[in-house]
Amino acid sequence: MKPLRSLINGRAEAELSVTSRLQYGDGLFETVAVQDGRLLLWPEHGRRLAASSARLGLDPVDPMALKTEAESLAAGVGLAILKVVLVRGAVGRGYRPEAAPTDRVLTLWPWPSGSRFKKRAPVFWCETRLARQPLLAGMKHLNRLEQVLAQREFADPYWEGLMRDTQDWVIEGTMTNLFAVERGALTTPILDQAGVVGVMRERVIVRARELGIGVHFDRLTKDRVMEADEVFLCNSVIGVRPALDLGRGPRRPGPITAMIEEALRGGGDAVVL
Amino acid sequence: MKPLRSLINGRAEAELSVTSRLQYGDGLFETVAVQDGRLLLWPEHGRRLAASSARLGLDPVDPMALKTEAESLAAGVGLAILKVVLVRGAVGRGYRPEAAPTDRVLTLWPWPSGSRFKKRAPVFWCETRLARQPLLAGMKHLNRLEQVLAQREFADPYWEGLMRDTQDWVIEGTMTNLFAVERGALTTPILDQAGVVGVMRERVIVRARELGIGVHFDRLTKDRVMEADEVFLCNSVIGVRPALDLGRGPRRPGPITAMIEEALRGGGDAVVL
Repeated sequence: MKPLRSLINGRAEAELSVTSRLQYGDGLFETVAVQDGRLLLWPEHGRRLAASSARLGLDPVDPMALKTEAESLAAGVGLAILKVVLVRGAVGRGYRPEAAPTDRVLTLWPWPSGSRFKKRAPVFWCETRLARQPLLAGMKHLNRLEQVLAQREFADPYWEGLMRDTQDWVIEGTMTNLFAVERGALTTPILDQAGVVGVMRERVIVRARELGIGVHFDRLTKDRVMEADEVFLCNSVIGVRPALDLGRGPRRPGPITAMIEEALRGGGDAVVL
Repeated sequence: MKPLRSLINGRAEAELSVTSRLQYGDGLFETVAVQDGRLLLWPEHGRRLAASSARLGLDPVDPMALKTEAESLAAGVGLAILKVVLVRGAVGRGYRPEAAPTDRVLTLWPWPSGSRFKKRAPVFWCETRLARQPLLAGMKHLNRLEQVLAQREFADPYWEGLMRDTQDWVIEGTMTNLFAVERGALTTPILDQAGVVGVMRERVIVRARELGIGVHFDRLTKDRVMEADEVFLCNSVIGVRPALDLGRGPRRPGPITAMIEEALRGGGDAVVL
């Protein structure tokens, strides 16, 4: 599968130099939902890129230029996924960063289809653990071998795998963030040691508070997640999706999950299908 | 700086598709010293690639084809570095691996020069810690953000930075393995939680035993390393290099380090300059 369109540093190209620091995973990415030419949650994606760029010490990217490039790829598109990758500019060989403009790699992809995205599909508990690394925690960086290994563990009918860290705390899905609903309030894992602070996770927190639903941050065990009244997963593409089967038999979609989902769609945070 | 030559899947190309799974750091690499057209320690590099490919579940690469490609790049070359990158083959978007041939990316680079490789240059103690992740430990994989962040911490005159893990055990340099000499025997860190099992580290162990020098594997504290009689670092490019300044004043090159260095050069394991 090839992208529908791509832009590398503003040029309609589809190839990268063999010298790219992608070879160290030395960069960041965002996965942006596009509907009717609109880039959903673009300000949030842009803020995360800027904040993580500063943490990694990447040469800053002009946010207006990046937005213009993203909009040009999304123009006239009904439903698609825009992937934005920022890679530290390469000069020589070796790990040491040198002063060079950050590379911008934008690709537009068809909207996903198929059973992995079916609403009633179960989720899997992965054995692959996330390392605890506060220097990288929270960022959507390009060192993704743990997620790749975790995704090797499961296949259809599972649409997502849940990951714990090396101390067995539940952190997130391979491509989603997790919320547990307990006595009417949300709890989502603390992501100071591992995990990605997802853009949709941030929106869920905002929308929940607008609805008067409490939001807590905590360390969650697998047992606690399995015993929660409702569990849902979220990301920029799927919005919110109930986790209906966590290994203790199927559940029904819950009312809090439905309220959050409706608020996100109504607020323009998530795609309306 | 561009590579002197490059081969992608056997073709003399220098660009990669934007769909490459390099964007997840989903692969492995080797850094091979080339002298007079000869690929130093090629069997050892090849064995490590094969073993790590199996751990990551990469589609196996034909070792003879890879060797032929490497030799063709190295032919007629006096002194150079050959970088071999294997990347999981890409099919679609997303973390999940799909059946596809592994991409082979070979680049030939000029031999490094300059002050970073001066023999008497000091080494730095990095604050960047390595995460503990047994699923990735030992492999020379492409998730190298920790090394990039560590290399941002120091500059000339330091030629290398030493890294500890998140439990403060000394693991390795950003691009080298470490040996401490204590009472005539070598100790090198256990690499079951973090670090790269270096090809030159393996050769040092073999050569030491041939010389009747004991080799131990242990967890090492910074204090123990600083108090060792001798400390040396090694990799496929530099061979063995004494660490003469670990923050407690300069040392002289030690006799055990010199014996190991001579044995490696004499045995054809390391470049003779």
